[in-house]
Amino acid sequence: MARALREPAIGWRLPPFYCPIEPAIHPRAAELERRAVSWLDSTGLFRDEKDRAWSIATHSTDFSCRMIPYGRDEPLLLFIQWNHWAFALDDICHDTGSADIRTAGIVDLNARISRCLEAPGSAMLGSTPFDATLEDLAARTRAMTTPTQLRRVTEGMRDWLFGAAWQVSNIERRVMPTLSDYVALRPSVNGTRFSLSWSEIAGGIEVPDGELYSAPVQALTEAAGFIVSCDNDLFSYAKEDSQETTDQNIVNVLIHHDGSSPAQALGDAVAIRDRVMTLFLELRDQIARDAGAELRRYLQALGHYIAGCIRWMNEAPRYASPRNRHDLPVPGATYGITWRDTPSDPGTGPLPIASAAWWWDQLDASSHRLRNHRVSDLHHDVRVPEPRCGDESLAAGRSAAGR
Amino acid sequence: MARALREPAIGWRLPPFYCPIEPAIHPRAAELERRAVSWLDSTGLFRDEKDRAWSIATHSTDFSCRMIPYGRDEPLLLFIQWNHWAFALDDICHDTGSADIRTAGIVDLNARISRCLEAPGSAMLGSTPFDATLEDLAARTRAMTTPTQLRRVTEGMRDWLFGAAWQVSNIERRVMPTLSDYVALRPSVNGTRFSLSWSEIAGGIEVPDGELYSAPVQALTEAAGFIVSCDNDLFSYAKEDSQETTDQNIVNVLIHHDGSSPAQALGDAVAIRDRVMTLFLELRDQIARDAGAELRRYLQALGHYIAGCIRWMNEAPRYASPRNRHDLPVPGATYGITWRDTPSDPGTGPLPIASAAWWWDQLDASSHRLRNHRVSDLHHDVRVPEPRCGDESLAAGRSAAGR
Repeated sequence: MARALREPAIGWRLPPFYCPIEPAIHPRAAELERRAVSWLDSTGLFRDEKDRAWSIATHSTDFSCRMIPYGRDEPLLLFIQWNHWAFALDDICHDTGSADIRTAGIVDLNARISRCLEAPGSAMLGSTPFDATLEDLAARTRAMTTPTQLRRVTEGMRDWLFGAAWQVSNIERRVMPTLSDYVALRPSVNGTRFSLSWSEIAGGIEVPDGELYSAPVQALTEAAGFIVSCDNDLFSYAKEDSQETTDQNIVNVLIHHDGSSPAQALGDAVAIRDRVMTLFLELRDQIARDAGAELRRYLQALGHYIAGCIRWMNEAPRYASPRNRHDLPVPGATYGITWRDTPSDPGTGPLPIASAAWWWDQLDASSHRLRNHRVSDLHHDVRVPEPRCGDESLAAGRSAAGR
Repeated sequence: MARALREPAIGWRLPPFYCPIEPAIHPRAAELERRAVSWLDSTGLFRDEKDRAWSIATHSTDFSCRMIPYGRDEPLLLFIQWNHWAFALDDICHDTGSADIRTAGIVDLNARISRCLEAPGSAMLGSTPFDATLEDLAARTRAMTTPTQLRRVTEGMRDWLFGAAWQVSNIERRVMPTLSDYVALRPSVNGTRFSLSWSEIAGGIEVPDGELYSAPVQALTEAAGFIVSCDNDLFSYAKEDSQETTDQNIVNVLIHHDGSSPAQALGDAVAIRDRVMTLFLELRDQIARDAGAELRRYLQALGHYIAGCIRWMNEAPRYASPRNRHDLPVPGATYGITWRDTPSDPGTGPLPIASAAWWWDQLDASSHRLRNHRVSDLHHDVRVPEPRCGDESLAAGRSAAGR
């Protein structure tokens, strides 16, 4: 970490992370990375060695292999390749930081991307390497998936593009979203469902529709996406702080709307994020109690997603040696994060955030009643410890130190 | 039909419709309409008597009851109410005809609408009657549906809003889409999947995911949406011809890109639409051969959608006495359409439209090989008659005269 460089407003040392979920990584990550980079070199996606270095610095393989540690190689490789392409899309089109970005152009681009995946041969794109790579990824995805899996990828893709377009529309309209609006859309911006569709495909998980789309599982999925998004907001804070427009992340949302200092907003952001982690763990245990084998594997996948992303971002030069401060990625760059065993906010009741309240509504009334609820209790309610009677395998997957 | 009024460029007399599918209408349509209007009056959705009259002139009940002739009353009523609301959204926000419309604002609105349905109590909207009505519709929809049904409604809603945003982006960018781009997105603009999700809910149809999302059924669904969209383009041509911007309909697409006269473009549009109808009938028969009971009911529902929409639009004052020519809807207004027994284009090969080619790819190779394929054969290939060995009930549902 080049600490002599201009310090971001929230500092280089991030608050300790609360994540009592055992991490894992795919045993063939190194081999998969070699294959991914070889593919990358064949696509012509980057203009020069510098762009190539920054694409590799996304550590797309590390991300994918931590998210899907037990996945089959071929679909996992395809997901890694999608991620290289997606980061390029993000950097070149969606999240450029330019104040001049126009939603109209992004909506048209997004429609073409979506339809390329959904409608084979629809020829809605041009012939740049970027377009050709998408066509190739789309064709191989269709060939590798069942109709249900493909549907989940395409809906995941649309969800991600939906979030990206909304973020661009905020920039164009010069709007910093409210906390509630931010919470409602941030999991989409982060591509949560697109990534999770690959957990299913590469992990061979087949959650029945009626279970995946039940309100508790949807709330849990959004909560997981929100946690990962908050963590991403912290790791990418420095990377985004020299844009023409103020980045839409949870710290800046709180600074803008609460008039907080950056340090105060950072603490509040972590408190909110940790409270959602508490909810995630409890709701996941509750769902696991009655879950079938496939749903239980999906619940595990959500844990890998959260625990994996922290470790990935901690050491990805994309975040740890950001491009607005470094000409080239710094090998071995790391945030050197630390961990904590308990949430920074001990509260267990719902956050006073309108768009998130329904996540807590999914908790069983019985266990719900044991806790103190107030309407606006951001940091104040008292945790009543209660014995967990959760799913064994999930419990086994939760370490005390969160390492 | 007030024929003394300014004639639209394609005339008042539409070409005969080719639709060999037996129509039906719900037996309690009149009662449902009374209930819908009573509900409408309770919402405060319209500012005055004139707006109220035009909302009723959408004939939302007739549309819904023709689309879902065998549906259960309560979900069917809810679908009717959704349609009143959706037409208001269309007229007030999405399809105003104004050249000043901005995609950024529409994308934000669409995100709020989507999340209102997906995330209970997320409070992403204001407190206008329009917002309150949406909250009410969303809450009742969640209460009435299974997780899978709800998911299909919410994805259908997103698909519709996705199409609407793309259309707005074209207006803002002053782009008339190419025919291929138009075909790729027009079923979304028309809300095809949103409407069909209600065929499933109100009809009690439960198509398994793996069947609904198979490529042949998706291609068939898009083809159905495209046919309905073309028909809508013709019935709404007059209604849209005094806008600030040229309406994005198939006739204007052909005028713009082919330099055709309106009459020539109209003929070409009908030829394209009829060719898709031929594909629809053949592909539907093919799918029906091996389909289970639920999928067969879905195939029937697609037929009701196509056949019902023509009859609905023919007599809805929204189209037959358009608001840009009439102060108030004209009772009994009708286009007085006629029918034909054969397609205006006898061709059976794929249309030379890149985004639609994959629809024909779903035909079994065996029957496919019987026909002549050329890359660009819009009106020229010869139909080889072949015996149909299709599903009995579907065959029974197809009348010779299409009446």
